[in-house]
Amino acid sequence: MKHFLPLDDLIAALEKLPGIGKRSAERMALALVQNRDGLARKLAHALLVADEQVGSCSRCGSITVTKENPCALCTDGRRATGLLCVVESPGDIMKIENSHSFQGRYHVLGGHLSPALGKSVADLRVNELLSRLQPDGIEEVIIALGTDVESEATVSYLAEVLTSRKVKVSRLAFGLPSGSAIEYADATTLQRAIQGRQAL
Amino acid sequence: MKHFLPLDDLIAALEKLPGIGKRSAERMALALVQNRDGLARKLAHALLVADEQVGSCSRCGSITVTKENPCALCTDGRRATGLLCVVESPGDIMKIENSHSFQGRYHVLGGHLSPALGKSVADLRVNELLSRLQPDGIEEVIIALGTDVESEATVSYLAEVLTSRKVKVSRLAFGLPSGSAIEYADATTLQRAIQGRQAL
Repeated sequence: MKHFLPLDDLIAALEKLPGIGKRSAERMALALVQNRDGLARKLAHALLVADEQVGSCSRCGSITVTKENPCALCTDGRRATGLLCVVESPGDIMKIENSHSFQGRYHVLGGHLSPALGKSVADLRVNELLSRLQPDGIEEVIIALGTDVESEATVSYLAEVLTSRKVKVSRLAFGLPSGSAIEYADATTLQRAIQGRQAL
Repeated sequence: MKHFLPLDDLIAALEKLPGIGKRSAERMALALVQNRDGLARKLAHALLVADEQVGSCSRCGSITVTKENPCALCTDGRRATGLLCVVESPGDIMKIENSHSFQGRYHVLGGHLSPALGKSVADLRVNELLSRLQPDGIEEVIIALGTDVESEATVSYLAEVLTSRKVKVSRLAFGLPSGSAIEYADATTLQRAIQGRQAL
């Protein structure tokens, strides 16, 4: 593609985005340079603004996109202060916020325990979590981690250290995902849905 | 997502990329602002460079990404001048160039005839095509359009006007795609592969 060389940097950068392969990156690059509404410039501008404004909240560990520290979620007076939701990443906070189902505060672990990736307790923001329990007046911690084996191990570990600090600990419910049929549920999901059955 | 508002512009711009929905755009935005290798800045830079350098070739109608006019493909002395490949879009040129199977010149139509989209002959670069036949010494035109009904109609139309100008006209072969099994071929593809069978 020597005749398209000046697009190569753009394609290479787009290819680094999650879920984007070479073909999609090429298609995007072409769409961007051919777009007549100035999409390339708009996207470049949005990237520079976001990059300029993004920071890290020293309290919850999430990204803060307005250079506020602590972030807007940590300082929002309308949110319950005693209720803390522990998540892996800032993206999880976005998901939960979009669900409008939680009105407390967050704490980002920065991953889960993973011997394979060499992630131990020291690599997670566990000390930061423990040290904010008392000053923040946390009464209940909801652990919102996934259901894979490593996340399970992380949940067990966190539950142990948190209950020893006299904090109420819960985790997200297991069960059938919304809109799914029994037919498509795997055995483990069904097993857990039965174990966690709810009285009507 | 009021707490992520400064990311909204970024997500909105990413959502306009081909094949990207809201979820992918959110995932990309988060990956971009959390990336530690400066991916956001690199992508922004590549976008601005590409946007700055991109132009349109007055001869073939393709994009020219170095502000040369005519473009590098049109002026490359090593390419056959009498052989012209007619495509819908610059992306098609990229595909054909990547296949290393064509060494002539290109002409971008800018779409195909489409009553539904209100695209008539006047909206395609047909006059530009006809007016370059003689000065460019075109002897053969390969029509590289798709196989949907509207593309077929466009091929028929082009074949008619081009043969009346005493130019040899061909189109891409129909047949089984590479690496596919008879089992997965649809009836029309099989029919055309049989009609176009090649002597061994």
